[in-house]
Amino acid sequence: MSQIYFTPGPAELYPTFAQHLQTAMDEQIGSISHRSQRFRDIYKYTDEQLRILLNIPATHGIYFTGSASEVWERMLLNCVEHESFHLVNGSFSRKFYDYALSLHKFAHINEKPFGQGFDVADIDVPDYAELVAITHNETSSGVQFRPTEIHKLKRKYSKKLFCVDMVSSAPYPDLDFTLVDSAFFSVQKAFGMPAGLGVWIANEACLEKAERLQKYESMTIGAHHTLPVLKKHYETFETPATPNVLFIYLLGKIAADMNRIGVATIRRQTEDRAKQIYKFLETNDGFTPFVKEDRHRSQTVIVAETTRPAAEVIAAVKESGMVVGSGYGKFKDGQIRIANFPATSAEQVGKLLARLKEVG
Amino acid sequence: MSQIYFTPGPAELYPTFAQHLQTAMDEQIGSISHRSQRFRDIYKYTDEQLRILLNIPATHGIYFTGSASEVWERMLLNCVEHESFHLVNGSFSRKFYDYALSLHKFAHINEKPFGQGFDVADIDVPDYAELVAITHNETSSGVQFRPTEIHKLKRKYSKKLFCVDMVSSAPYPDLDFTLVDSAFFSVQKAFGMPAGLGVWIANEACLEKAERLQKYESMTIGAHHTLPVLKKHYETFETPATPNVLFIYLLGKIAADMNRIGVATIRRQTEDRAKQIYKFLETNDGFTPFVKEDRHRSQTVIVAETTRPAAEVIAAVKESGMVVGSGYGKFKDGQIRIANFPATSAEQVGKLLARLKEVG
Repeated sequence: MSQIYFTPGPAELYPTFAQHLQTAMDEQIGSISHRSQRFRDIYKYTDEQLRILLNIPATHGIYFTGSASEVWERMLLNCVEHESFHLVNGSFSRKFYDYALSLHKFAHINEKPFGQGFDVADIDVPDYAELVAITHNETSSGVQFRPTEIHKLKRKYSKKLFCVDMVSSAPYPDLDFTLVDSAFFSVQKAFGMPAGLGVWIANEACLEKAERLQKYESMTIGAHHTLPVLKKHYETFETPATPNVLFIYLLGKIAADMNRIGVATIRRQTEDRAKQIYKFLETNDGFTPFVKEDRHRSQTVIVAETTRPAAEVIAAVKESGMVVGSGYGKFKDGQIRIANFPATSAEQVGKLLARLKEVG
Repeated sequence: MSQIYFTPGPAELYPTFAQHLQTAMDEQIGSISHRSQRFRDIYKYTDEQLRILLNIPATHGIYFTGSASEVWERMLLNCVEHESFHLVNGSFSRKFYDYALSLHKFAHINEKPFGQGFDVADIDVPDYAELVAITHNETSSGVQFRPTEIHKLKRKYSKKLFCVDMVSSAPYPDLDFTLVDSAFFSVQKAFGMPAGLGVWIANEACLEKAERLQKYESMTIGAHHTLPVLKKHYETFETPATPNVLFIYLLGKIAADMNRIGVATIRRQTEDRAKQIYKFLETNDGFTPFVKEDRHRSQTVIVAETTRPAAEVIAAVKESGMVVGSGYGKFKDGQIRIANFPATSAEQVGKLLARLKEVG
């Protein structure tokens, strides 16, 4: 039986995905050269649709990688000479920090207990930090870092490069890219695609930093997917190596579908459904929202503490043809995670909550 | 109109690809968690099928990356402390060398003119080179490095790590993995899949080297897709980050299809068709094989010099529903490249040669 996936990624495929995949097969997108005009047109189209959807200005390039995790490494290699600063409020922001340590950067950390979020008042950016690494949406803990707070912090520390992990929330957060130097996401979350493509948005300041490190500081900024080489190829809508052409095509089509609905509508729907889910969790004995502060609650990945063992809840929900995520890591036994991505409809969310009510 | 792709990658999709993709969609492979038993079973299956197909022993792990180009970087970061040695006979072996320079390794090079290949007698491996980088099949020049020569060289320099780029030839070359420490390929060539997945095979010696560099030499071996972390997750058939689950599934299915035919048959068919194509090129006024020495001629990517401008030949072939590749880089005007991958049938090759005869 076909299941509805409320998992926080890989997740339910976007409703139009299968149809676009069929068109791609009919048009033999899997066979076309990445040095052909056909590919350059595809890259250009996806670039245009993402710019409309996320309001990305011309100052920022849009690049493709193998995954969002790869971008953690690329960002640190290309944009940090010595010191980075990481606002850690869950396992994925922690991994960004761990990558910095692995690359022998001097990495500063400000860490919140699992389930708690940041406000600007909590944060002092160290003087010599070159990069401020922020995770908009913590897939592990269900905590969000509000865009208004991100913008406020950047205004306070305008000379630092700000990089925002929006892996499990894009296109939901309304980031002001005049205040965000770099951001990245992967396609298997709110875009409703299979995993296998990372998207890296980076502005001229990031590029200049990478060029400076390479030329004047004689540092290695890596060899694969360096920002200067990505940018050089991007100027003609090409990529340095053979990219995931099929997924770039599909991402463009899904972004276009989202643009037809309108990002404002998608954001409002996301918030309406999140409100509905949190209200259910607050008023139902079987569940409690894990994140206590309303302003820190994720709109796209909602973490609930369960009264019954989480595994029982997950199994009972699955019997009705729905899959919710388990709690992350050591929270597996007492938490579930519910993805609230555009691919699932209001009706499906209603069905999930009805079932949770029965089995909680 | 649907085209037959004789391009050297992205290339014609394997005949069973569409059917496996449909099954994957029906089974919702694009939505399953990469931390689920379902995914571990998929990874295990693909691993088993590749081991059978390529005769990979238990000493070697099979890892997944975003692309083969990424593996150039990973191999150098994980397995070279100071010095690497590159046998360069085309643009892709050259890029492996360039990656070493970008990573500030002391890279030695032995370079052949474009279109010429190596014999063991030509090669002295520098004393302090830790890694010998060999490209089995040069997609740019149509030159092959015979496995017997690779094995001979490794026997002569048994203490060095040998890494073989088999991007545009696997599963054709019959490598002896007791003499090859690492090899890698991508799926959009002879496996007949869309681009978006790299496969990295590496043995215990590679792993030990990476661990030594990290622990005792206090070097950074990168942060993403490092060999020790890949290996740790591989032990339970998982990956450190969300991989391209769908393509790992599809690769396993296609490898299984190839195993049903038998790799010996696939290799014999490849050689028979290559012989047929080279004979055509030698006996037809419109074309000349670019690689002069028979023993250096690639069996999977065949480069021909054209008498007419290459663009005219390519356009005329396209009118008949077939696509051949253009010459690489500055050889674009006077060369074409013909992929001889398992996805195209003997009948299709016959049709191509008949058309080339008309238009050459």
